[in-house]
Amino acid sequence: MIAITLPDGSVKHFEAGVTPMDVAKSISEGFARNVISASFNKQTVETSTPLTQDGNLVLYTWKDDQGKKAFWHSTAHILAQALEQLYPGIKLTIGPAIENGFYYDVDFGDITISDKDLKGIENKMLEIARGKHEFSIRESSKADALEYYKKQNNEYKVELIENLEDGSITFCDHDNFTDLCRGGHIPNTGIVKAIKLMSIAGAYWRGDENNKQLTRVYGISFPKQKDLTEYLQLLEEAKKRDHRKLGKELELFTFSQKVGQGLPLWLPKGAALRERLENFLKKAQKRAGYEMVVSPHIGHKELYMTSGHYEKYGADSFQPILTPHEGEEFLLKPMNCPHHCEIFNSKPWSYKDLPKRFAEFGTVYRYEQSGELHGLTRVRGFTQDDAHIFCTPDQLDEEFKKVIDLVLYVFGSLGFENFTTQVSLRDPEKPEKYIGRPELWKKAEQAIINAVKDKNLDYVVEEGEAAFYGPKLDFMVKDALGRSWQLGTIQVDYTLPERFELEYKGSDNEMHRPVMIHRAPFGSMERFVAILLEHTGGNFPLWLMPEQVSILSLSEKYEKYSQKVLNLLENDEIRALADNRSETIGKKIREAEMNKIPYMLIVGEQEEKDGTVSVRKHGEGDLGTMSVKAFSELIQKEIKEESIEFNV
Amino acid sequence: MIAITLPDGSVKHFEAGVTPMDVAKSISEGFARNVISASFNKQTVETSTPLTQDGNLVLYTWKDDQGKKAFWHSTAHILAQALEQLYPGIKLTIGPAIENGFYYDVDFGDITISDKDLKGIENKMLEIARGKHEFSIRESSKADALEYYKKQNNEYKVELIENLEDGSITFCDHDNFTDLCRGGHIPNTGIVKAIKLMSIAGAYWRGDENNKQLTRVYGISFPKQKDLTEYLQLLEEAKKRDHRKLGKELELFTFSQKVGQGLPLWLPKGAALRERLENFLKKAQKRAGYEMVVSPHIGHKELYMTSGHYEKYGADSFQPILTPHEGEEFLLKPMNCPHHCEIFNSKPWSYKDLPKRFAEFGTVYRYEQSGELHGLTRVRGFTQDDAHIFCTPDQLDEEFKKVIDLVLYVFGSLGFENFTTQVSLRDPEKPEKYIGRPELWKKAEQAIINAVKDKNLDYVVEEGEAAFYGPKLDFMVKDALGRSWQLGTIQVDYTLPERFELEYKGSDNEMHRPVMIHRAPFGSMERFVAILLEHTGGNFPLWLMPEQVSILSLSEKYEKYSQKVLNLLENDEIRALADNRSETIGKKIREAEMNKIPYMLIVGEQEEKDGTVSVRKHGEGDLGTMSVKAFSELIQKEIKEESIEFNV
Repeated sequence: MIAITLPDGSVKHFEAGVTPMDVAKSISEGFARNVISASFNKQTVETSTPLTQDGNLVLYTWKDDQGKKAFWHSTAHILAQALEQLYPGIKLTIGPAIENGFYYDVDFGDITISDKDLKGIENKMLEIARGKHEFSIRESSKADALEYYKKQNNEYKVELIENLEDGSITFCDHDNFTDLCRGGHIPNTGIVKAIKLMSIAGAYWRGDENNKQLTRVYGISFPKQKDLTEYLQLLEEAKKRDHRKLGKELELFTFSQKVGQGLPLWLPKGAALRERLENFLKKAQKRAGYEMVVSPHIGHKELYMTSGHYEKYGADSFQPILTPHEGEEFLLKPMNCPHHCEIFNSKPWSYKDLPKRFAEFGTVYRYEQSGELHGLTRVRGFTQDDAHIFCTPDQLDEEFKKVIDLVLYVFGSLGFENFTTQVSLRDPEKPEKYIGRPELWKKAEQAIINAVKDKNLDYVVEEGEAAFYGPKLDFMVKDALGRSWQLGTIQVDYTLPERFELEYKGSDNEMHRPVMIHRAPFGSMERFVAILLEHTGGNFPLWLMPEQVSILSLSEKYEKYSQKVLNLLENDEIRALADNRSETIGKKIREAEMNKIPYMLIVGEQEEKDGTVSVRKHGEGDLGTMSVKAFSELIQKEIKEESIEFNV
Repeated sequence: MIAITLPDGSVKHFEAGVTPMDVAKSISEGFARNVISASFNKQTVETSTPLTQDGNLVLYTWKDDQGKKAFWHSTAHILAQALEQLYPGIKLTIGPAIENGFYYDVDFGDITISDKDLKGIENKMLEIARGKHEFSIRESSKADALEYYKKQNNEYKVELIENLEDGSITFCDHDNFTDLCRGGHIPNTGIVKAIKLMSIAGAYWRGDENNKQLTRVYGISFPKQKDLTEYLQLLEEAKKRDHRKLGKELELFTFSQKVGQGLPLWLPKGAALRERLENFLKKAQKRAGYEMVVSPHIGHKELYMTSGHYEKYGADSFQPILTPHEGEEFLLKPMNCPHHCEIFNSKPWSYKDLPKRFAEFGTVYRYEQSGELHGLTRVRGFTQDDAHIFCTPDQLDEEFKKVIDLVLYVFGSLGFENFTTQVSLRDPEKPEKYIGRPELWKKAEQAIINAVKDKNLDYVVEEGEAAFYGPKLDFMVKDALGRSWQLGTIQVDYTLPERFELEYKGSDNEMHRPVMIHRAPFGSMERFVAILLEHTGGNFPLWLMPEQVSILSLSEKYEKYSQKVLNLLENDEIRALADNRSETIGKKIREAEMNKIPYMLIVGEQEEKDGTVSVRKHGEGDLGTMSVKAFSELIQKEIKEESIEFNV
């Protein structure tokens, strides 16, 4: 008999040789029908693998990430089989599950396949799936494995096997197909009900551009046709909301090859939007007792030797800036904390002065490979809504909770209602990745766990995800399409205060070390604007809109009246724009709708005579004619209601 | 007979051999008494030099910079004579006039002099001056000159003479003293009525630290004792207003060796002050049709190759930033214009869209040698209140004048009533210093001259002072102590639009090149805050004050009431601070006075009971007791009156 421990801590006893699926059935037949993969003692196993010793068993369904991974990895096997049947003689290489689906890299030899072939491959895959073939793992000696692929002239698999140890080599069989594989499959092909091959791309063998280019086929699969339909709709919607597309259409930001990739240039409307967000946060921070500071974008190399940034990132980031004389070396700042430590160090402090909360919209620069860059979400220069709180150890718990309140206030105000948190701790097995003493790490980690418990946050703990100087609490928000984005972060740090020898005089007249909290509710202005764009599709709340009103004159004759309306609105601090071009009113409305301008005011002869405007609301249409004053009150009321809601 | 042209264009005829002083006397005896130096055909001459050909003569008095230069240079001769008499055997090297006074570098051999010797030297100098000895220039052959100094074992003068061409060597004699000298003296020593030797410093021969260290004696002199007294008072006052001293006392900014010299860190009060100034300018710019943009602090080396910055400054500035992979090279941006050109280039424009006015508080980095750094006025990183206007050639004159209006509005609002302007043109003899075609330079230069004439500005023209890409108009303001500071600048540029291939579609449907105006009314935030500190001595207008009110509680017992007063004032958007420390009220008042807080509110038992505050005004004293509401109204009225005055 062996003892199987389940995730809820319960222990069940079975005869040796029991399979994960047997255990699932022992819980309930209904549950077992949904189980598609398993792990035993943290190792991925098949649901049909006989268990022969005591251990911890986790059973996964489609709802779990591990379940999806097994599902998609198994579908990659089906893809490989289909390709071999359709294109005999091709050479298979590797086919992993990815974040959304799977791919398989194939050497097609002289054959060229294109998007129009994908439908046929999908059909072949579905035909295989319907066969309900079981996946089963089979061990093989290294010699046998090598011989199998050498016979097929598959130099890729041969290379893979040569790097494996004898005794650890397994194949996965299903139907008449076999593939070198480490395991982790769903019970049988029949569970895969819907398949979509997304695209074909080139990929170098092992990602090395000196190797041969292979053909990568991307796909995704689901246990229900409905799931696939929803996924494709989501993709379609996401494409419309792509912040790179919207940023261009709404003229928010641009990139220039001459300035450099990954370095955004904020156009007037984007800069105004960003400033509004900054002002919103500044106000909230002022209420919460923060003080703004300003620091330079470079620092002496010595500063980053002190902070540990140089040791950690020096070689992989932008290289030092030399001076033409005096032999000095500067670095672009990757973080604002060392500068803020030096600001703290600029005068002596008493415990009565603490906490000090220094905030800065600080632009930092970090090198990313050009292939990794993506719109505003992955850039080489970005502005953090950064702050560092210097407090006494006694104040830490309270300050940490106050920061959580501020972060939640920001999310709520901007319509991100749906979020989860992650407590990121050290990887206890890799202490060399971190700076600072273990006992301080423990204190910092405990402070975060206390705070999230106290605030009743929905959290997961991830080991190995901490910053190099301290543990952190990360906030993940779900956007309107249900996608998860990492936003704000709060970090506890005992290490930099030591490295910078920060101190304050305590009530005991002795000098003490303060604790630091690093935090950024938005994360960065770039990332936050990107997510806000994807979340709202560009339909920001009215208070945030770069242009709230567009005044569309019926012809150039009404330019004077249009200007008068503009002045009246601007007097009431409404952001308006007059479109007096000699274009048709239809074109003007279409453009204003495309630019997501919340209100359009049409002015012509009648309106000028009556001192009125004809009001159109974005996405809603005609609201009728009213006086300029009435319209101004309408929009002010709307903004005010939003403001109350957001407490701006 | 020769024809002498005077600065007013009048031509007078004299016999050859007439001296500048003769010409002065022919104008008026009274004028001639004030003439102390002269230039003929742009060459410095003595007032006693016989003129033998036609030419342009300028006569200088003490009021002219050239006059002061001759005065101080002549006093350096007197210093040298006095030192030789007092310390026989010393070796003289060079003794030029400087911005404020003169110095002489001397090899004193084994003799050591100190500050306490200065009085005796001054007395000796005054004794010489009273002798009314005439300065006269004498030509010498190189051989004679060398022999003279070799006999004295003066290797310094020998080295100087060896580098001169035979035929160009002159000595200046007065009394029994002679010195190697190119000329440019006052008529006689008697004109020097007041002398002050300021300090002694070390200085390497020829400024090269590998050479011997000499002793430099600094001094200044005046034609009246009263002028010296006033100058010393000014120095005393300037010391009190030194922005480095005030910046530290008022906790506005700091520097850190670890961050790097010349890289200011703005402390909370300084950052708030700076933000207020930025908001003031933002408002004015918004009214004037500017749009804010945001650009990164680095750019690809290629960007600066295109702009010409790399060619011009590359070797002397911060060196390129390499990436760890991909072989890219970036530079810290020395100016914002290339980035703004790329923003302009991000979409097509029609003539109807112009002018476009892109503004940014853009932080730029320029290397300065550490010896050149000085507080906030000479730094390595600074934030320009920058903007670039892209307009059609037709719009240039109008736009330029609008910028002048904005600059004057800014100066007026901040209390700089007293200013002059300088039109800085190319040096026509050094075309290699500039980029761009000569005909475009002419157009740009003419536009500036048109504008200053039209605006009736008091201006001087300086050749050779233009930016490398275009001519400019610089604004010099006089501060409360009468010192001149360079502030705002406006530049016309036809060159960058060519280099960046900027274009717009004209009404003729053809593509045209826009013109650019570069402008910065403050110059930079750092420099402007420094000058504002020196100008106001830290007593900023109330609207600009980091802290307008300090609430001083008589003891900790009144902390709650003090907090209530604070909340009431903050509700009215008054920037207040509560000082509830357990310190004596006397100490609290002293500190608030030192921090130049405009209003102090003292609260104790009586005030708490009555709901009042006892008001003290900085520098004025007690204003009596009033309700919090009455005080709030008082201060709001004062700010409002300032606002009307400044039209903020």
